[in-house]
Amino acid sequence: MTDIKNELKIAAELTEKELSRLLPESDPDYPVIFEAVRYSAMAGGKRIRPFITLKVCEMLGGDVSAALPYAAAVEMIHCYSLIHDDLPCMDNDDLRRGKPTSHKVYGEAMALLAGDALLTHAFGAAASNPVLSSEINLTAVKLLSERAGCHGMIGGQVLDMIGEETPHSYEMLLKMHEKKTGALIRLSAELGALAAGCRSGSSFDAAVKYAESIGLAFQVIDDILDADGDEAILGKPVGTDRREGKTTFLSFMSIYEAHRRAELLTFEAKNAIKDIENNEVLVALADYLLVRKS
Amino acid sequence: MTDIKNELKIAAELTEKELSRLLPESDPDYPVIFEAVRYSAMAGGKRIRPFITLKVCEMLGGDVSAALPYAAAVEMIHCYSLIHDDLPCMDNDDLRRGKPTSHKVYGEAMALLAGDALLTHAFGAAASNPVLSSEINLTAVKLLSERAGCHGMIGGQVLDMIGEETPHSYEMLLKMHEKKTGALIRLSAELGALAAGCRSGSSFDAAVKYAESIGLAFQVIDDILDADGDEAILGKPVGTDRREGKTTFLSFMSIYEAHRRAELLTFEAKNAIKDIENNEVLVALADYLLVRKS
Repeated sequence: MTDIKNELKIAAELTEKELSRLLPESDPDYPVIFEAVRYSAMAGGKRIRPFITLKVCEMLGGDVSAALPYAAAVEMIHCYSLIHDDLPCMDNDDLRRGKPTSHKVYGEAMALLAGDALLTHAFGAAASNPVLSSEINLTAVKLLSERAGCHGMIGGQVLDMIGEETPHSYEMLLKMHEKKTGALIRLSAELGALAAGCRSGSSFDAAVKYAESIGLAFQVIDDILDADGDEAILGKPVGTDRREGKTTFLSFMSIYEAHRRAELLTFEAKNAIKDIENNEVLVALADYLLVRKS
Repeated sequence: MTDIKNELKIAAELTEKELSRLLPESDPDYPVIFEAVRYSAMAGGKRIRPFITLKVCEMLGGDVSAALPYAAAVEMIHCYSLIHDDLPCMDNDDLRRGKPTSHKVYGEAMALLAGDALLTHAFGAAASNPVLSSEINLTAVKLLSERAGCHGMIGGQVLDMIGEETPHSYEMLLKMHEKKTGALIRLSAELGALAAGCRSGSSFDAAVKYAESIGLAFQVIDDILDADGDEAILGKPVGTDRREGKTTFLSFMSIYEAHRRAELLTFEAKNAIKDIENNEVLVALADYLLVRKS
């Protein structure tokens, strides 16, 4: 039986070591930006995305060392998006993972630049993967750009903003999630497959389907926890979606139905990879994300 | 005798066509971000950086078609930096090239995302250059990341901010310019050489030396125009550096001396490429930038 929490912990440590290796070294004439970059990138978190990259790579017969630079690159993109999302002109959040947000510590201008820097260096990290060929690294760079760009994560952010003005239809809610968080989770799986030398075919498609399904399940659970979670465990106030009049899964179904939906998505995720050997850790991740309380 | 203004115009048209081809196509569910991206990327300007990429490529025997995706990528990075620089938390500018800045038209959040998008898609554009090999495109991506990152353009931006608090030494002023605008101008030349299949050696070094020299000359002239230019021609108020107490070249020398410095740098730029055939257009560019009034 997989000890998923321990697996997550081990992978997070590997990812953090790789991040530390790949983030730019400081310049004594202007250390502040390098500090700001590390403040956000080394701030912990579950490191779910790099975990997926590493474990998809292993499941498909690749070596973790080949996946690590890609895992770090995905995490840099994720961290950049959090810094920019937290800015006053976006969500205006003061806290992130229990710590003051970047702009609270370094000011808005430096936080803006720290986000820009993480995005910029993510591409350098993926391009410089020393284990893989130029061709594979170039494919990774193209995928990063596509999934993080206007048809991926940025598009999802825009749809989220549009949804604050005009309530989304259910179809548009799905599209928003597919892009806002789904695109990067999908990218995590794609880069893991790529690192294992798998660029297409049924195993690649299975990894993508797995990622799409757990990504959406993650969002459904998020909406349930916001409505029905335990503030003490969650670490943030509940009921904010409702107070802000946000369209969520619970705008279209009951908590019970939403839970059934998350269960179905988790089943679909596990089902997608059921015929692949060494799928235990990813199966355990899907189950873990379903029952999470925070 | 080279008609440099006409050369610039022709290259700008080519670049804009390439930009239009490479920028992401709209999605009818959220057209606003695609509009915001094009609003800034297609807003004109002299397009000096892509010009350098195209002309260095041609000078070194390459074909313009190989350099165009790189030229567009550099210009996307430049445009992203302008959008983010104009934001209220940075320079808080309302006008850019005579038009309202991105955040004045689309709001701060959308402007932030439009900048992020241009940075993100610049990497995709360079990575997808259809004319060149994976290996060369990957080198281009690494250079983009390095020159736009913390040791390049972002670093220069940070040094600029530090200089607003504590006046720079002359050495630090040079370092700031080398990074803030120098890094991207250097990148323009490097990518042009790369597109011509030239990755190192004396021609590569000559192109880099040329770019470094005209980049710095450009900054010296900027400082002179701010102190001594004609507002009507310049299209913006003069004397702002002095009113804001900014450290410039004129903090260390007279206007006469600064002009001599710009002339020397221009000479050095032209001298660097004097033994390369077909250098006429780049020689003309160096001269043109020296005598520009806006």
